[in-house]
Amino acid sequence: MRESLSTSPAQLGIGLIGTGFMGRAHALAFGNANAALDLPARIRLSALADADSARAEQCASAWGFDRSHADWQQLIDDPHVQIVAITTPNHLHFPMAMAAIAAGKAVYCEKPLAVNLTQADEMRRSAKAAGVVTQVGYNYQHNPMIGLAREMLEAGELGEIVSFQGEFSEDFMGDPASPWSWRCEAAHAGGALADLGSHLLAMARHLLGDIEAVCADASTVHRERPASIGSDQMRAIAVDDQTHALLRFANGARGTFSSSWLKHGYKNHLSFEISGTKGTLSFDQERLNELRLYRTGAAGRDGFQRLLAGPAQPGYAAFCPAPGHQLGYNELKALEVQALIQAVCGQRSRGPDFEEAWQIERLATAIRVAAAEQRWVALTDI
Amino acid sequence: MRESLSTSPAQLGIGLIGTGFMGRAHALAFGNANAALDLPARIRLSALADADSARAEQCASAWGFDRSHADWQQLIDDPHVQIVAITTPNHLHFPMAMAAIAAGKAVYCEKPLAVNLTQADEMRRSAKAAGVVTQVGYNYQHNPMIGLAREMLEAGELGEIVSFQGEFSEDFMGDPASPWSWRCEAAHAGGALADLGSHLLAMARHLLGDIEAVCADASTVHRERPASIGSDQMRAIAVDDQTHALLRFANGARGTFSSSWLKHGYKNHLSFEISGTKGTLSFDQERLNELRLYRTGAAGRDGFQRLLAGPAQPGYAAFCPAPGHQLGYNELKALEVQALIQAVCGQRSRGPDFEEAWQIERLATAIRVAAAEQRWVALTDI
Amino acid sequence: MRESLSTSPAQLGIGLIGTGFMGRAHALAFGNANAALDLPARIRLSALADADSARAEQCASAWGFDRSHADWQQLIDDPHVQIVAITTPNHLHFPMAMAAIAAGKAVYCEKPLAVNLTQADEMRRSAKAAGVVTQVGYNYQHNPMIGLAREMLEAGELGEIVSFQGEFSEDFMGDPASPWSWRCEAAHAGGALADLGSHLLAMARHLLGDIEAVCADASTVHRERPASIGSDQMRAIAVDDQTHALLRFANGARGTFSSSWLKHGYKNHLSFEISGTKGTLSFDQERLNELRLYRTGAAGRDGFQRLLAGPAQPGYAAFCPAPGHQLGYNELKALEVQALIQAVCGQRSRGPDFEEAWQIERLATAIRVAAAEQRWVALTDI
Amino acid sequence: MRESLSTSPAQLGIGLIGTGFMGRAHALAFGNANAALDLPARIRLSALADADSARAEQCASAWGFDRSHADWQQLIDDPHVQIVAITTPNHLHFPMAMAAIAAGKAVYCEKPLAVNLTQADEMRRSAKAAGVVTQVGYNYQHNPMIGLAREMLEAGELGEIVSFQGEFSEDFMGDPASPWSWRCEAAHAGGALADLGSHLLAMARHLLGDIEAVCADASTVHRERPASIGSDQMRAIAVDDQTHALLRFANGARGTFSSSWLKHGYKNHLSFEISGTKGTLSFDQERLNELRLYRTGAAGRDGFQRLLAGPAQPGYAAFCPAPGHQLGYNELKALEVQALIQAVCGQRSRGPDFEEAWQIERLATAIRVAAAEQRWVALTDI
Repeated sequence: MRESLSTSPAQLGIGLIGTGFMGRAHALAFGNANAALDLPARIRLSALADADSARAEQCASAWGFDRSHADWQQLIDDPHVQIVAITTPNHLHFPMAMAAIAAGKAVYCEKPLAVNLTQADEMRRSAKAAGVVTQVGYNYQHNPMIGLAREMLEAGELGEIVSFQGEFSEDFMGDPASPWSWRCEAAHAGGALADLGSHLLAMARHLLGDIEAVCADASTVHRERPASIGSDQMRAIAVDDQTHALLRFANGARGTFSSSWLKHGYKNHLSFEISGTKGTLSFDQERLNELRLYRTGAAGRDGFQRLLAGPAQPGYAAFCPAPGHQLGYNELKALEVQALIQAVCGQRSRGPDFEEAWQIERLATAIRVAAAEQRWVALTDI
Repeated sequence: MRESLSTSPAQLGIGLIGTGFMGRAHALAFGNANAALDLPARIRLSALADADSARAEQCASAWGFDRSHADWQQLIDDPHVQIVAITTPNHLHFPMAMAAIAAGKAVYCEKPLAVNLTQADEMRRSAKAAGVVTQVGYNYQHNPMIGLAREMLEAGELGEIVSFQGEFSEDFMGDPASPWSWRCEAAHAGGALADLGSHLLAMARHLLGDIEAVCADASTVHRERPASIGSDQMRAIAVDDQTHALLRFANGARGTFSSSWLKHGYKNHLSFEISGTKGTLSFDQERLNELRLYRTGAAGRDGFQRLLAGPAQPGYAAFCPAPGHQLGYNELKALEVQALIQAVCGQRSRGPDFEEAWQIERLATAIRVAAAEQRWVALTDI
Repeated sequence: MRESLSTSPAQLGIGLIGTGFMGRAHALAFGNANAALDLPARIRLSALADADSARAEQCASAWGFDRSHADWQQLIDDPHVQIVAITTPNHLHFPMAMAAIAAGKAVYCEKPLAVNLTQADEMRRSAKAAGVVTQVGYNYQHNPMIGLAREMLEAGELGEIVSFQGEFSEDFMGDPASPWSWRCEAAHAGGALADLGSHLLAMARHLLGDIEAVCADASTVHRERPASIGSDQMRAIAVDDQTHALLRFANGARGTFSSSWLKHGYKNHLSFEISGTKGTLSFDQERLNELRLYRTGAAGRDGFQRLLAGPAQPGYAAFCPAPGHQLGYNELKALEVQALIQAVCGQRSRGPDFEEAWQIERLATAIRVAAAEQRWVALTDI
Repeated sequence: MRESLSTSPAQLGIGLIGTGFMGRAHALAFGNANAALDLPARIRLSALADADSARAEQCASAWGFDRSHADWQQLIDDPHVQIVAITTPNHLHFPMAMAAIAAGKAVYCEKPLAVNLTQADEMRRSAKAAGVVTQVGYNYQHNPMIGLAREMLEAGELGEIVSFQGEFSEDFMGDPASPWSWRCEAAHAGGALADLGSHLLAMARHLLGDIEAVCADASTVHRERPASIGSDQMRAIAVDDQTHALLRFANGARGTFSSSWLKHGYKNHLSFEISGTKGTLSFDQERLNELRLYRTGAAGRDGFQRLLAGPAQPGYAAFCPAPGHQLGYNELKALEVQALIQAVCGQRSRGPDFEEAWQIERLATAIRVAAAEQRWVALTDI
């Protein structure tokens, strides 16, 4: 492990908590952001924390962190750390983020923000009161193609927006033999709506703004699952396998919403279609470098077209100088890191902060209430 | 025009009312059915009616009908006519069908069955009391690929059905300058739900059976339209431009529903995706010779596949002996005619009759009530 | 069977030889053309010939022909017949067409024109000398989407044409157990190049004009096949299973050509891509109602788009009044019949006549020579 | 810039020459390989060379290299450098690689290996004589989906291979106003065949092995181009804008080949279709995380299917734990680096070495000769 250096003003020290998939995705993203992206400050991989100290040390070494901690509170207190990145299971987001805020550090937290709306509310209030920069890992919206979609929407290229149809489906829980995990517990923000649907709600808000009312229907298809892989012991499941909803946007658009983690054939199907008075736009995360666009006005030569990501979008140009080469998932994460560093350096925040993440949680809560009570729910009532 | 012949037992005389697009589609379908399909009786084009007697005569000649009538009641009374085909605007379906039933003739009526549920109810009761064969023109379900989908569902190839997502969108009313027509009047069964959505409801019932409850949201985007093309005079529009809904099926599946006639880019996008515990199936009428299928169990070699229509489906084989050649819209209509002739000859009815068409209208009515009252509606309450 | 009527001036009597798949396709096409298309003369189904007199009579009755003949020469001599339609196996095209020409009748012959270039040459010379109208059944070019492609090419929408890449693959001979048939004999114009490739050559000429030189490679993958289905007796196969070629067009474009009847997964994959200095266009017969188009000049909003067939093309409008409804294979055949009737009535011929069909055979011959001799062959040398 | 450290046995020092797009792509790849991939030795970014010393220093700092050199020979001589990575224009590959070989260092050279076959031959002989490890940057074949394709081919899942159809098209030279550059000079290995086509030839050999004979056709569409962007001065262009070829494989398969840099609409269309006696497989680099597969034997449920990249392929799993997340171009480059490090550490080489790169150049030369002399050329004659 390298010798620790005091951080220069042009460097920001990252303290990363967690060494699972998202931990490594963060490590890759910090490295890619440093090497490829225009940043107002360089990132220093200052500290890595994992409760397993051997693993913490090993990953720190492999991923290029200066040092490791077995105690996450120590990482938060570490003076080399200016930004605390949280990639632990959902129920730990609250205590870690609150500690980081208390220490006056910027917080970069994976989604969902918290395991319930009360926590989320406390987190956004505390962050605001402390004046710390926050960002939540709804990485899909940092895709340059989503940036292009938003540009087109803001420029009115689709006219007034009339409809939104969104679906985030995967199939990793499609097999009834897929075992129970903490993702199956409501107390850990489990279920398809929280796990996948929240990404889609974040996207809907990112592109079309506030949603005023929802109606919803949720169902649990497999009501018990093995306690672990291959186990004979079954555990009851109460969280949703799929949730469908109707959405009413403040801008007048209407739409549908679906999230499922047992829809066979889909692996990362965060998809939407937005239609306005002048055209229609659609996107599918399974082909993240593409947008599908239809615009009126080309009589006889009209039709949906496939737009490919290319260097006209700055986030793409940083990684690939020619269209057709394609960004990968990890580069979306690097672009998220760029937004974080810009926000910490006082530039315009592009990533969802705790305030916005609370709005997303509130919306998910409204959908949950609407499904439970089988009625329309106004967001103002949540 | 040919000399009229008395119909032999092996012939069924058709009396067609209407000479618009659907009138001609019927004429083509009768011809194609006679030439290509295995029928228990040959079809004779006995009489054609149109209020404009010159047009009636001209079309009768061009389309090969034995004679024409300017008065549709005369056509119904014509002893050469055993089957009355109704292709007039929606508000005429009721009086014509009731007259045909009263005359003891089989009725082949375009959709929607009627302009309100009361009429539809009277029609199905009268047909049942009179014992006449009826069929309603939900032609899309006669597509051999829909037949294949139903086969797969019935055989359990997708396992237990979990979700349905359906959308029927077109864009012919997308331009605010698209003028008012009778399709914009609720009293004529106008609006996107009645005009397009009813096809999708028919399909949902055809494939997955009864729907028990719905919640819905409807909106009128363009609240006034020119009285005619290019007119300065505007007429207020009250029918829906788009309707979205949540569906709860009796078999436990849950789903979403969308219908729109102003979603740019779509021309005949009657589409659905059905997912079960063993796979997922999707269809889009804009590529009517294809199904998209995902089945579990081929680890490492799994993925959605495109099935092409081919001669394994009898309806296809009748028209094309090799896969990849493709049926067109008019051949679906010919297959619908085959189902009609089979039903009239006492064979198993495959087309939706007035009873089923009433169920479809009832479901559309439930959606309309749910949208108006912003609440869930049980079908048993309609 | 109906009483024969003398044909009025406004009627053209068809004499159809052959009752196989193509025979029925003709019968359907005549019916559809009469019912839906604008024709300068009505078609009368005057006579049907099949060597099996019982089958001839049965099919005549089922398909609506006035009378039947067991002897095709009688059909040609039949005074009710003005147009002789030939749908028999390839080796019969020559004697039948020559007899029809001798009788001064128009000839509508299925492709390929003949089983060798000498025959084809004699046929085009005889037809020219006799002044009879001829048409050969390269039906795919009557697709309205091909019409649109040609319009775009002629209007220079793609700029100067630079490249052509064409492939016609199917897989009906992909199974080594697919037995020998006359299609496996060179003397019957068998092999993938003659059976499928000739359609693609016709299309290339239809869209881009003359080809000046070719180089080619042919291979027979399965060198013997069962004499019949399931037979133990094997027959040697000498015709090509696949042929690949390079093409040099007179307009300067260069290209590739492939035809195969054992390329698994393809069922009717007559496809091409044409690229010019301003754009690229592609087509696949397996989705015959679509074109794929890319045009330069829409920076940032450029991408391949999917054009759907619609009523802007007259041939489409005759069958379907709205886009997205789709024509089927049999309607392309009806549009071919329309071109035939127009030509017989002295209007501009749009279908390939014997002269053009000879050019296609000459091109196929050049490819065959180039493959056999493994060298470039100039068309002027054939 | 960091203090230089002596490299431990478990580290390999990289010396990178060039700071253009490929230089940065290498830097990203080394970082990603270190952070995500299982490597037998860690990579140390030891030295960066660029003739512009200020740029060399700046990039070294930004990309994390220990030191910089303005003179590439110094970098080669640098004792911290064990592997020399060459990303300079094509004409410099030869002197740099020869110097590195002379210094006994491993060489990682971008494609094409050299600007003519004589150079390439000398390079492969020298490397062999010196016993140094070499690898050439045909990065596309390190795609896990290409790995899967090769697995399927080797396991015989497609049966005996019958045909190959390959195309690598882009459109960056499609505009006649695209100016002259060194890529337009044959002496710098310019032209579409060398620039793009060589990737496709590499892929064809990677998947199907030796090619025995070729025939080809090349054309220069725009025979002069501006000397620089917007310049009035025109320079004559002699290299090919497009080349088409026929290929005969040693295994008996036949095929077509196209490369173009002016085919509008394509941005990175390295694509191929391979068909055998049991199925067909296709790939397009513009959707690099997908394969399209058809296999025989699923009567009635057969059709092309879309396989998505997923963690069953180790190269994918290293970056993304779930399917559908997608690798990007830069991660293919990291996987190439992994192959390099494995080869340097004595493990099985998976990347093309100088010997294989010479074979690729030889094949390109055969195509060039075949096009120039308009005849078939056997590889044994080159």
